[in-house]
Amino acid sequence: MRRTSLGDAICPVARSLDEIGDWWTLLIVRDAFHGKTRFNDFQKSLDLAKNILSARLKTLVANGILEKRPSADGNVRSEYHLTDKGRRLRVVLVALRQWGEDNLFDDGEPMMVARGPANRPISRLQLMDHEGRPLEPEEIVVTRGRKRSPSATSSRARNARGR
Amino acid sequence: MRRTSLGDAICPVARSLDEIGDWWTLLIVRDAFHGKTRFNDFQKSLDLAKNILSARLKTLVANGILEKRPSADGNVRSEYHLTDKGRRLRVVLVALRQWGEDNLFDDGEPMMVARGPANRPISRLQLMDHEGRPLEPEEIVVTRGRKRSPSATSSRARNARGR
Repeated sequence: MRRTSLGDAICPVARSLDEIGDWWTLLIVRDAFHGKTRFNDFQKSLDLAKNILSARLKTLVANGILEKRPSADGNVRSEYHLTDKGRRLRVVLVALRQWGEDNLFDDGEPMMVARGPANRPISRLQLMDHEGRPLEPEEIVVTRGRKRSPSATSSRARNARGR
Repeated sequence: MRRTSLGDAICPVARSLDEIGDWWTLLIVRDAFHGKTRFNDFQKSLDLAKNILSARLKTLVANGILEKRPSADGNVRSEYHLTDKGRRLRVVLVALRQWGEDNLFDDGEPMMVARGPANRPISRLQLMDHEGRPLEPEEIVVTRGRKRSPSATSSRARNARGR
C-alpha cells in the first residue's frame, strides 16, 4: 500500500508517520512506558505474532526509539528501553489518548485513565500561540520554511536520532 | 497484520489507533486542514492509488471524521469537509509534527512550518498536571477507570461520533 517513502518529505507530519505510522509501533512504545521491557511481555500484551513483533522491535531500535540492553538479572533475552527520542513520543500518545477519550468512549464506559503524580488528573493538551493564547484548529497555517538552528532541544534530539 | 480489532479496547490510545492508525488516514486529514476538499486534490497531493484513496475517504466519512457535501460550484463530484470530531485531530497532527521537527530534521533543513495568526509561532504542546505544572513523560501513569460523565466537550463529542 505504501507506494513512496515519505522519510524525505519536507512535512514533519509525513516524516513522523513514515517512522512511527504503524499501528503496532505506537502500541509497543505505549507498553514500554507502562514498564514492559521483555519480548515476552510485549508479546503477551499485544497478542502479536512473534515474527511481526520481532521486526517492529528491530525497526524501533534501528530508528533510535528503543535501545537494547543486556538483561539486568542475567536472563539470556535482552531488555528494550525507551531512548530520549522515544520518551518524547509521550506527547503523541497523550494526544491520541485524549482524542480517543473525547470521541470514542461513552460516558461511564470502562477506560484506562492517565494520571500524574499523587493520582492527580493531567491537563488537556492545548493548541496555543507562542504567547499562550488558545488557538482554534483552523487558525494554524502551514508554510514552507526551514528547521530553526540550534537550541538545547534540537541538539539533544540530533544526538538521539541514532541514524 | 492486524489480527484483532482494538476498536473495543479499554485503552483510548489503542481505540484511536484502530480508527486512525493508518498512514494515509492522517495525511488525508492533514490535507483537509490545508483546504483540500476534492478527490482529485487529495489524489494529486498524496500520489495515492484511486481505489485506496476512495476506500480511506469512505472510512473517514463512516467514522464521522469527514463529511461529504455537494460541491459548492455545482461540480458533479462532492466535497469532503472536516467534522468537529475531525477538527479535534489537529492536536494529534501538531504532536506528530513537533516530534518530527525535533527528531527527524537537521538544523536548517527545508521543512513545512506551522504558524498561528499573523504568522506568529505556535507553542509547543506540553504535558502538564491539572494545575499546569510540567510533567516528565514517565510521571504519567495509566490505571483502570471510567470515562467521566457529561461535560460540554463530551456531549459535543458524542454527537459528532457519527456511529
